[in-house]
Amino acid sequence: MTTSTTFLGLGAMGSALAAAALDAGRPTVVWNRTPRRAPALGERGATVAGSVEEAVAGDGVIVACLLDHRSVQGVLDPVAGNLSGRTVINLTTTTPNESRELAAWAAERGITFLDGAILAVPEMIGGAGSVIFYSGSATAFEQHSALLDRWGESTYLGPDAGMASLYDMAMLTGMYTMFAGFMHGAAMVGTAGVPATEFAERQAAFLAAMTGGLAGLAAVIDAKDYTGKGQQSLRFTETALAALMRASSDAGVDAKVLKPVHDIVRRQIAGGSATRAPPAFSRN
Amino acid sequence: MTTSTTFLGLGAMGSALAAAALDAGRPTVVWNRTPRRAPALGERGATVAGSVEEAVAGDGVIVACLLDHRSVQGVLDPVAGNLSGRTVINLTTTTPNESRELAAWAAERGITFLDGAILAVPEMIGGAGSVIFYSGSATAFEQHSALLDRWGESTYLGPDAGMASLYDMAMLTGMYTMFAGFMHGAAMVGTAGVPATEFAERQAAFLAAMTGGLAGLAAVIDAKDYTGKGQQSLRFTETALAALMRASSDAGVDAKVLKPVHDIVRRQIAGGSATRAPPAFSRN
Repeated sequence: MTTSTTFLGLGAMGSALAAAALDAGRPTVVWNRTPRRAPALGERGATVAGSVEEAVAGDGVIVACLLDHRSVQGVLDPVAGNLSGRTVINLTTTTPNESRELAAWAAERGITFLDGAILAVPEMIGGAGSVIFYSGSATAFEQHSALLDRWGESTYLGPDAGMASLYDMAMLTGMYTMFAGFMHGAAMVGTAGVPATEFAERQAAFLAAMTGGLAGLAAVIDAKDYTGKGQQSLRFTETALAALMRASSDAGVDAKVLKPVHDIVRRQIAGGSATRAPPAFSRN
Repeated sequence: MTTSTTFLGLGAMGSALAAAALDAGRPTVVWNRTPRRAPALGERGATVAGSVEEAVAGDGVIVACLLDHRSVQGVLDPVAGNLSGRTVINLTTTTPNESRELAAWAAERGITFLDGAILAVPEMIGGAGSVIFYSGSATAFEQHSALLDRWGESTYLGPDAGMASLYDMAMLTGMYTMFAGFMHGAAMVGTAGVPATEFAERQAAFLAAMTGGLAGLAAVIDAKDYTGKGQQSLRFTETALAALMRASSDAGVDAKVLKPVHDIVRRQIAGGSATRAPPAFSRN
């Protein structure tokens, strides 16, 4: 039989991954615990498997995109006997330690394991801007590059199976805090009748420009030199953050996302170890 | 005598503003409580005033860039008699309410008041990327546009003198939270030996791309429709944030900047008012 690619889990992301494989003309087997999007993929040429056993009956690579790491183990463990010597690519959202746990589980069963973390929404899969990090088996990454490249820009981050997830989650922290800060700002200008859409346009341009400052902050972090040569003082930054806190309070906006940032700077000043700012909290 | 522009306060920002006026060939008077950068500006052609009285003796516009709003009032109040019928442009960092307080103080004394908030570091003044918001007197904004445009891209935000500061501080909230999130992420990947500079390159590109999502979040905020049609569920977002919290904890990184974001989403779920996410906290 022709080597097929098996997709386990057909949520929005799993379906997008399977659809991209179908678009590339690859023999594709799909399975989901409930039918959901399986029939639609079947109409596009996928073989819809009635069970996990059936889905992994071939000898091809298995792509898992399930609810969480427990689902991955729960779905794969009963059929592990069929997976020995084959490759599992896990695109389920897992923490670094959960990915490492799955890698250990796979290693014990002679399964080659590659973990992936997707920095894209399902609609972006296969299109421009889709970035996917991988870590774990380098062999699997190289061997299946044609498949992986169908989904987006593939980046291999090393043999530690937890690295893709760690990197992804580190990136997402910046995104969630940026979004939260944006919503705080929208609430502030909203108190003066400014529509959020008007604010968003200026905020997006400003924040995109400010990402240009991350390289400078990173250089300070790597050099571990927080004496802040050529930087504004930590007190200046503290004053700015205190003003932001006061302005939020004046406007009746709860500064809960800003307070920990202010607290970090105040603690650093109280500690007395740095009288000059890491540029991260520096401006003007 | 020729109408001069008077600069009160010669910190890094005040000096940059005065230098840009000198570069434009404008007659310029400068004053600072201590000499600091005054002699250097004098060498470039500025008249260095020995006192505030001397600095405001002419009939030109006065630009204040001092420590805080109390300094502005403290410096200008004793010479207010000379300022009636003239214009004060305040570029000191003040909260919206402090700017409104200064506007009221000016109005009582027959002084035309324009408040400005600078979204740039001193080195950027007069160059590309320097953006300055103004609010207060529309007449002053129009009358002095040649001067203002020397410093950067000038945007007038209306007659409420507090608006420029409110808008600026709303924008800065996004910047500070983004920087804090970046540093959290750098600490996470740092535990696996990834240099911050390597992380910064990917994070900057990712965050710049993600600013493209702010318009969508803003549309939801303006429509006040948090039912999340076509969006991922709030539970999905909560799961993602919980994973980020767990991964941070596993890596030994204090999640203090992430926790309030997670808390907001959990509170929203507990409130039961929205079973679908505002896209602000939505991804995948």
